[in-house]
Amino acid sequence: MPLNFTLTKESNNTRARLGRIETKHGVIQTPVFMPVGTQATVKTLTPHELEELGAEIILGNTYHLYLRPGSNLVAEAGGLHQFMNWNHPILTDSGGFQVFSLGPLRTIIEEGVEFRSHLDGSKHFISPEKSMEIQMELGADIIMAFDECAPYPADRDYVKKSKDMTTRWAKRCKEAHKREDQALFGIVQGGMFTDLRRESAFELMELDFSGYGIGGLSVGEPKDIMYEVLEDLIPVMPKDKPRYLMGVGSPDCLVEGVLRGVDMFDCVWPTRLGRHGVVITRQGNMTIRNLPFARDFTPIEEDCNCYTCQNFSRGYIRHLLKVNEVLGIRLTTIHNVSFLTRLMKEIRQAIADDTLLEYSKEFLSVFGGEK
Amino acid sequence: MPLNFTLTKESNNTRARLGRIETKHGVIQTPVFMPVGTQATVKTLTPHELEELGAEIILGNTYHLYLRPGSNLVAEAGGLHQFMNWNHPILTDSGGFQVFSLGPLRTIIEEGVEFRSHLDGSKHFISPEKSMEIQMELGADIIMAFDECAPYPADRDYVKKSKDMTTRWAKRCKEAHKREDQALFGIVQGGMFTDLRRESAFELMELDFSGYGIGGLSVGEPKDIMYEVLEDLIPVMPKDKPRYLMGVGSPDCLVEGVLRGVDMFDCVWPTRLGRHGVVITRQGNMTIRNLPFARDFTPIEEDCNCYTCQNFSRGYIRHLLKVNEVLGIRLTTIHNVSFLTRLMKEIRQAIADDTLLEYSKEFLSVFGGEK
Repeated sequence: MPLNFTLTKESNNTRARLGRIETKHGVIQTPVFMPVGTQATVKTLTPHELEELGAEIILGNTYHLYLRPGSNLVAEAGGLHQFMNWNHPILTDSGGFQVFSLGPLRTIIEEGVEFRSHLDGSKHFISPEKSMEIQMELGADIIMAFDECAPYPADRDYVKKSKDMTTRWAKRCKEAHKREDQALFGIVQGGMFTDLRRESAFELMELDFSGYGIGGLSVGEPKDIMYEVLEDLIPVMPKDKPRYLMGVGSPDCLVEGVLRGVDMFDCVWPTRLGRHGVVITRQGNMTIRNLPFARDFTPIEEDCNCYTCQNFSRGYIRHLLKVNEVLGIRLTTIHNVSFLTRLMKEIRQAIADDTLLEYSKEFLSVFGGEK
Repeated sequence: MPLNFTLTKESNNTRARLGRIETKHGVIQTPVFMPVGTQATVKTLTPHELEELGAEIILGNTYHLYLRPGSNLVAEAGGLHQFMNWNHPILTDSGGFQVFSLGPLRTIIEEGVEFRSHLDGSKHFISPEKSMEIQMELGADIIMAFDECAPYPADRDYVKKSKDMTTRWAKRCKEAHKREDQALFGIVQGGMFTDLRRESAFELMELDFSGYGIGGLSVGEPKDIMYEVLEDLIPVMPKDKPRYLMGVGSPDCLVEGVLRGVDMFDCVWPTRLGRHGVVITRQGNMTIRNLPFARDFTPIEEDCNCYTCQNFSRGYIRHLLKVNEVLGIRLTTIHNVSFLTRLMKEIRQAIADDTLLEYSKEFLSVFGGEK
């Protein structure tokens, strides 16, 4: 197994835990938030800025990279790490979520998914085997099994069939995957039905993956339902494997997820918000693009040590955003990614200090949530 | 006089010269190329990146900053240096060139120029006095007199009248300007008529400015005509004042300008080219966005020490540009600005070594020019 996961501490009064994931491109401290680099770049940032921001692992999106520049081109460049000059761990998703999001442009059959490119309408087919082939070409440290992410809401019958197929696809992925320097994670599905979730977990555990994604959450359901699913599911998942809650990234969800035993998160949220002129603060989100900030010459957050807050005022950033200057979205992105990496660092420290419950209560009582 | 210009060396066999401009925000080595930061940011770059790229002075555009965020807001922030966190010298233009470029949206009278904003059609009036007021609010180290830039081609009668008015406006600027920590430059006009150029220069010299811009060139005329105008004009300009060729920035023009005695240049060229997927090389411009570079995993220039060339391949940059990722235009901009700051450094060294003629011949024989 190319991935070595060590559980270094379990919280005394929550399900949170501290861990280390070792890969050939370096160590990841968990719980961790992974910024998303969809098209072989975390939008607006250089790899060196990501390092400075404390990112230990980033995501690449299989669907996008398969279409552009093409996974064979990335392989020719020496793999995704070398292509984008990021010499730390990378995780690629399976392409499943993006393909299913295409809606009417795709058809799901047992063999796989036929879809038309959102770019030029060209026809493509991704099967579990094809997803493995693409991800082996991209060469990430952690890759994901090809799954079907059921929509929300969906009836039990649909979700059951979808979950069963995801298990069969997971088996085919396991068989098709050949790179020994990559860890393959299965993805637990089952919608909001806790018994189906548990079934999914047990079926995947039999296949013995290096880690387990929790897919199909944060797809439109109320947050409380997501938390309930996690509370029911996570206790049956193996302790000695990383648990990765896919597509989740708002600060309150990170805290709640860690409390329930999640080790890894990813989301386009901080980078996308930044590009829309919204910055994250301890008090919640702030639309810095708005007029009230025009003559505000204080930093986004007084006590933030990120490059943005150390050097620029709200008024200046607001100006840049209003006149569509690239530096504006660079600065908001830096702050937002910094906010999440710092939050995860504080969470890890709180677990180490056995103060996570207090830390979480304090954080959640002040943080306004996703507005 | 807030600006101290020291001529440190004159070339033995050309009109080129080495100098130092001292301002309260630091020293500028001349000949110098000044990157343009139209809207209080050199597009895509942080001030720290500009420092690393060797930029010693940057430009701000009075017209744009007057409209957004407003010069009074910039003043409230502590001036342009503090607003954008650039603690080195800044030069602002007078707003003239941008206002005249508005074409049918503006009306020129003796008092000044009435124009409609290109953003919302709102009515504004900029006079020489108003230009001084705005530039005093912005607080740059070097500011420019409000001039009329005659179009090309234009008949002698129009150019003569325009030049005469520019002289009267220069006088009004001189009278209206009150900040002792700013140097005010006059702008020589006169179109392509060498006798009018000389008249303009003499009239401005009588007013005794801290330096002299050469405006109204690189406005569509053949390069040879620009060079002829410079050859005729520069010998009558004072030796002990900086000479600033406005809006010129292609590498061949920088070399030819220095040979004819120019000390300062500015242009949006390197940054704008970069945003269009074009990079500058010793051999000329290269459209890195094109297909032939897709599988080219070498740097833009093997011997370039800029951040882009040290870390990323042509193929990766091409991918970023094709998929409209911000990092793509960041990397091309870095390379292009670096190319010009390095070129100016080499030119200064060649003047110091008395090898400028050989250096220029060699450079111009290889450089393909502006394609």
